[in-house]
Amino acid sequence: MATAAKGVVLLDFWVSPFGQRCRIALAEKGVEYEYKEENLWDKSPLLLKANPVHKKIPVLIHEGNPICESLLIVQYIDEVWSNNPLLPSDPYERAQARFWADFVDKKVSECWTRLWKVKGEAQEEARKDMIEDLKLLEGELGDKQYFGGETFGFVDVAFVPLSAWFYTFETCGNFSVEKECPKLVAWAKRCMERESVSKSLHDPHKVYEYVCQLKKKLGVD
Amino acid sequence: MATAAKGVVLLDFWVSPFGQRCRIALAEKGVEYEYKEENLWDKSPLLLKANPVHKKIPVLIHEGNPICESLLIVQYIDEVWSNNPLLPSDPYERAQARFWADFVDKKVSECWTRLWKVKGEAQEEARKDMIEDLKLLEGELGDKQYFGGETFGFVDVAFVPLSAWFYTFETCGNFSVEKECPKLVAWAKRCMERESVSKSLHDPHKVYEYVCQLKKKLGVD
Repeated sequence: MATAAKGVVLLDFWVSPFGQRCRIALAEKGVEYEYKEENLWDKSPLLLKANPVHKKIPVLIHEGNPICESLLIVQYIDEVWSNNPLLPSDPYERAQARFWADFVDKKVSECWTRLWKVKGEAQEEARKDMIEDLKLLEGELGDKQYFGGETFGFVDVAFVPLSAWFYTFETCGNFSVEKECPKLVAWAKRCMERESVSKSLHDPHKVYEYVCQLKKKLGVD
Repeated sequence: MATAAKGVVLLDFWVSPFGQRCRIALAEKGVEYEYKEENLWDKSPLLLKANPVHKKIPVLIHEGNPICESLLIVQYIDEVWSNNPLLPSDPYERAQARFWADFVDKKVSECWTRLWKVKGEAQEEARKDMIEDLKLLEGELGDKQYFGGETFGFVDVAFVPLSAWFYTFETCGNFSVEKECPKLVAWAKRCMERESVSKSLHDPHKVYEYVCQLKKKLGVD
């Protein structure tokens, strides 16, 4: 990757919850990096070269080597910079943390797009699925401070960027996250007390505004 | 999990490439386990209790603790039984191995179901996607013995069970994997020389016969 800067570079898009995972993980580890904002409608040659398979942000480029897929990037960051570990050391707890992060990717992220892209009956279904998925996460969190227990960790990093979308979920899906999942809302507030999180996320109203613009652009408004 | 036997139990379904990943990993490590065949049309209370979120096989139950999602199970096995490591020790190589295993899950596995479930134009699209995905894997393999180099590893475990489906892909999609991706076919043969693989996979004609029965059952034949 001759064109990539040395050190650590993150190819990202400001509102992406997937990119925000990487930003949070880098901040937790205290890693300095160069942030490169991508135009998703006119992707840079660097992005297309660094992620030729999926052509998606985020991509972390470390000493010229590109790493793709946000959860894999967070795991890579956790393995390379071992201070403030995000994944637990016990193999069973690690498997559980990976399971719930994977759940956020497979279930919540899938509903998330559906919720604002579809209408009528399909939206009602997306709403039901979203509430069900959030309730499963609420159940897994239980009375713990963070998903892994006392310490902010892998599942928190994976899921917390979506908390800035709760307002969008509520507005598009016509439900209250706080009413359905009060523990998740309290947890999100707790996470926002960390600088790594508050500096990576955006105001929920700004996120919603972006979604409204996107809906117009895609002709689904 | 009071109902689970002590030791290692695998809840699985004979033809599942996801279950076969776990069987191969356990065999590579020399771990003895109890195999429990599930009836996917009448799932056991043990499966529903062990995987309440996805309700899917495979599930590995180790000392009463259930681990779900095949790639997470293989990673768990690799972390608990450290002999014959499947993932490389270098963080960047680990990230690459996880990337390609994830690619098999996100792309090939998705096409795989589509290829025999749809017809007409949609099938033509599935065929094109499948060939494109296989060619990407062929490119990643290149002239290496295995995906990780000289040693059988994580990506091989993730992908090789689908080689028993190549005949089904070819028959449903009307193309030749050997012609499109000769290196993949040679690699699959090389993998089949390992007892861990040959004892876990089934005859490609038996797999195809199963798909034909399944198509009838689902009314897509």
